[in-house]
Amino acid sequence: MLNFYPGPSKVYPEVRSYMVDAYDEGFLGTPHRGEQFVQLTRETVSLLKQKLNIPQDYYIFFASSATECWEILIQSLTKEKSFHIYNGSFGEKWCEYARRLRPKSEGFRFGINEEMPVSQLEISSDTELICFTQNETSNGTQVSATTILNLQNRFRNALIAVDATSSMAGLNLKLIKADIWFASVQKCFGLPPGLAVMACSPRAIFRAKQIAERVHYNSLVFMYEKMLNHQTTYTPNTLGIYLIRRILEDRPIVKTIDKALTDRAADLYTFFSQFADFQFLIENEEVRSKTVLALQGNERLIDDIKKRALHHNIRLGNGYGLWARNTVRVANFPAILDEEYEELKRFFLHYYA
Amino acid sequence: MLNFYPGPSKVYPEVRSYMVDAYDEGFLGTPHRGEQFVQLTRETVSLLKQKLNIPQDYYIFFASSATECWEILIQSLTKEKSFHIYNGSFGEKWCEYARRLRPKSEGFRFGINEEMPVSQLEISSDTELICFTQNETSNGTQVSATTILNLQNRFRNALIAVDATSSMAGLNLKLIKADIWFASVQKCFGLPPGLAVMACSPRAIFRAKQIAERVHYNSLVFMYEKMLNHQTTYTPNTLGIYLIRRILEDRPIVKTIDKALTDRAADLYTFFSQFADFQFLIENEEVRSKTVLALQGNERLIDDIKKRALHHNIRLGNGYGLWARNTVRVANFPAILDEEYEELKRFFLHYYA
Repeated sequence: MLNFYPGPSKVYPEVRSYMVDAYDEGFLGTPHRGEQFVQLTRETVSLLKQKLNIPQDYYIFFASSATECWEILIQSLTKEKSFHIYNGSFGEKWCEYARRLRPKSEGFRFGINEEMPVSQLEISSDTELICFTQNETSNGTQVSATTILNLQNRFRNALIAVDATSSMAGLNLKLIKADIWFASVQKCFGLPPGLAVMACSPRAIFRAKQIAERVHYNSLVFMYEKMLNHQTTYTPNTLGIYLIRRILEDRPIVKTIDKALTDRAADLYTFFSQFADFQFLIENEEVRSKTVLALQGNERLIDDIKKRALHHNIRLGNGYGLWARNTVRVANFPAILDEEYEELKRFFLHYYA
Repeated sequence: MLNFYPGPSKVYPEVRSYMVDAYDEGFLGTPHRGEQFVQLTRETVSLLKQKLNIPQDYYIFFASSATECWEILIQSLTKEKSFHIYNGSFGEKWCEYARRLRPKSEGFRFGINEEMPVSQLEISSDTELICFTQNETSNGTQVSATTILNLQNRFRNALIAVDATSSMAGLNLKLIKADIWFASVQKCFGLPPGLAVMACSPRAIFRAKQIAERVHYNSLVFMYEKMLNHQTTYTPNTLGIYLIRRILEDRPIVKTIDKALTDRAADLYTFFSQFADFQFLIENEEVRSKTVLALQGNERLIDDIKKRALHHNIRLGNGYGLWARNTVRVANFPAILDEEYEELKRFFLHYYA
């Protein structure tokens, strides 16, 4: 099965033997307060910083999912309100979650073909956390580094939190331009689901300590205190952490991966632009995602593409949210090989050219 | 390494090949809203009920850890207060967590050599949830089925929630006698950490719907609504669910496992009673745990036992909480083989008889 689903997505083939290694090396039954676990976490944190270009003074945390990260950040870094800028389902969901916990939280929707309109944003000075999705998996858009820099320059007081679920470990994100970045591992990390990675600036940790929310098992201050000893607040998915370590040891630095993904994205956008019966959901090239492509057509055609692909052992991503039925999504993640995209191209050329 | 640590603990050797099967069968990259995942969850739920003697009308849920279950239950099943009955660290921690979320929550500590004193409990009628630990991993005590029945008979209004982390999937628990039971999988399930299983009575779900707490990503009503379609509220540890399915397929029903563990516990208690220099932490045979034995001695001896054992590739459990330095714990979990206990006995006979 060729798997282009944008998450859970194709895992690196090496995962197969690394899981066996984890068993053989005793990681699956090792106490999470013991030296073997601590050593694993220490090495994994170090590799994450080195390979993903994370500033040395940022703090790394593990959570169960990016969804849990949404909640951790609202609970531990806001007392009154966050502000959410979104153009798709995941950014909007984060806003909905935030409003349940902090009803004063606000949201601003921008168009899928627009750049995030930083200069138009009216964010009140009592906003504690500005939240957005760097790469919106639901519609295949992304927010550029320049836009993030502009956002940071305009709003210097609030913390900025970035959901980078479908770009972290794939794109060379400039983490210094925001306070919190997080992602689950079943996208660009090329790993099985059940774990998320979060990076926090010293300023974010400072605020967490000021707010001192100590009500939840996953309160950020508790997570911080435990991670000073390279431990977690609960018995974690140790295998998941082990797999991050092994995969990162193999991979080049993210700058190299970004270059390859960027080239491949350009190639895929060129390739898919030749078809008459479907278009890109996102017309504005400037905001198109490098890691998730969304193709739009009439519902019958889209349904036909997905079913026929599956018949040929090719799994494409369903559309999502508003675009559930008239789009199909194609992941451009590091674990997927160039030759797999060549096969995908042959499939499209054969049936839809 | 022989591993008698009471969690994370020895995993079944079959896990090694089952992980490879999970990869080969495409479970690691399968979408968590897709048919393959739904089918897996449906089968796993069915097996859990069948093999663990869970009433057919109970609802099964997956969470990341038993610690998360503590929080889910307090958030979703209490508005004002819970009541916690404990004699050790884990029961007490649950009480502490509850008090942070619901400050009116109350706790009652009983002695480690006492049966839970059901008739003396003064639990006010506005208590929404009564919480206790069936098997207290920190000190090696357990609460009997008769005591749980008495508790249920005395307090018919409040829901009863049971942390069965180190007994579920090992002992033949009478789930009908309480509303909520939960455990993480790194103890008697014999699996790697990163997943918990929770079973809820229809009454518990009814209360959850009445309270209608819809503020958290892991609100019980959301979990319930998703599980109607055999799905979770976030991208879960799919491999963990797969491993539950595979292991349960292999195992006999829990009644058979309970019998074997009970016999082995009796044998181990007899064996360890012959040593002059250390005793059981728990003197009252009636309340001794069948799955976690705690041996008490002076700190120097305990330290010597643990270090010498490790030198012989035997991992024993550290003491915990109050008993961190003067006890050593031995797990009696299903994944550990009889011959491994024979080797453990030879070690003790050789050095400490």
